[in-house]
Amino acid sequence: MKKLIKVLTLSVLLTGLMSFAQEKTSYVPAKSINQEYNALYIINEADDQKLKAIIRNINNALEDQRLKDKLNVELLAFGGGVEMFLKKNPYQELLVKLKKRGVVMVQCENTLREKKIDKSELFDFVNYTPSGNGEIILRQYEGWAIIKP
Amino acid sequence: MKKLIKVLTLSVLLTGLMSFAQEKTSYVPAKSINQEYNALYIINEADDQKLKAIIRNINNALEDQRLKDKLNVELLAFGGGVEMFLKKNPYQELLVKLKKRGVVMVQCENTLREKKIDKSELFDFVNYTPSGNGEIILRQYEGWAIIKP
Amino acid sequence: MKKLIKVLTLSVLLTGLMSFAQEKTSYVPAKSINQEYNALYIINEADDQKLKAIIRNINNALEDQRLKDKLNVELLAFGGGVEMFLKKNPYQELLVKLKKRGVVMVQCENTLREKKIDKSELFDFVNYTPSGNGEIILRQYEGWAIIKP
Repeated sequence: MKKLIKVLTLSVLLTGLMSFAQEKTSYVPAKSINQEYNALYIINEADDQKLKAIIRNINNALEDQRLKDKLNVELLAFGGGVEMFLKKNPYQELLVKLKKRGVVMVQCENTLREKKIDKSELFDFVNYTPSGNGEIILRQYEGWAIIKP
Repeated sequence: MKKLIKVLTLSVLLTGLMSFAQEKTSYVPAKSINQEYNALYIINEADDQKLKAIIRNINNALEDQRLKDKLNVELLAFGGGVEMFLKKNPYQELLVKLKKRGVVMVQCENTLREKKIDKSELFDFVNYTPSGNGEIILRQYEGWAIIKP
Repeated sequence: MKKLIKVLTLSVLLTGLMSFAQEKTSYVPAKSINQEYNALYIINEADDQKLKAIIRNINNALEDQRLKDKLNVELLAFGGGVEMFLKKNPYQELLVKLKKRGVVMVQCENTLREKKIDKSELFDFVNYTPSGNGEIILRQYEGWAIIKP
């Protein structure tokens, strides 16, 4: 009888261990719940390919069925990323489309000072934050997701 | 007597200030507590060096004594990062080793559509998510650590 | 009377919808609250421009009025980022200034082992962590903001 109990106990333990090992390698998909999601996208490079990639990425996130109509996006530029918001550059059409989907554009004011750029050189729909780095830190503390593609 | 009190008060204040200054510049090591940790590793570039670096990074995290046997890792590929999961590329051995350690591989389906890649071209052990960007946002909201080396 | 009610209901609904649309595209600035903030800055590339940019970024964050006297910064180097802390390289002056502002420097010990670098080659004020990747994961779980410029 004692032996039987031992064997049974061992089987239960082994099954537990195996299911744990199993669990560790199986994919548990990320799921959305019934809440709003906020994401801060960051661009700090003056690279045409990266600028277009970040816009494509934002659109993909907005179209993800798990986030549909639940996702607020802020697009933050600092450093070389300011190129995205300059009137002289060819991104207006792409940005206006983003804006229509509710994306908010924000430019770091430190960058403007360092690069001697006047606000009048940026699209009118751009908003401003004292420092891009401060914005990133504060948004993380507010619970936002941060994405730097 | 009054002078003595003044001196004493000043000393106490100074000691307080100094210990504050001390505190601010001394390193308080990160410590693990008795819980499970989840980390999402992101690869979105088709760069052989970066692909190998991310695998090395994951192994380092899994071997960190502070996280030993407590860390679950998901490795997410999107954009150029899909190269890591293609059968024709030479990463199978490295990935199988990761998989044995419990790492879960996940590929963005948007990327497959954009690049016209069929799932049959990827290793069988790869899992799929509708969009890599949605996955990143949702995992952050689920409390995961996000690492993009 | 019924028609009036219908019209009124419709107006209320429309106003609601419009204010929602409005809300989604208007910028709500990040605000600091009365608490301490912790930020982990990561450098893992041996790129002189990036090394200087990260120092500039940290200074900008420390000077952001929203974070003034509330922000603790840890600067973590791993991989190629170790160059920043080597005595033979020209970053001492910049780092000492950061240190005076309370920034804590931390080096990944895995990197030293992989690159066969001895601790005596690094500045004396550098602290050590077993693995940079473990540090990143643990800090995120401790609620820190993570910035990789």
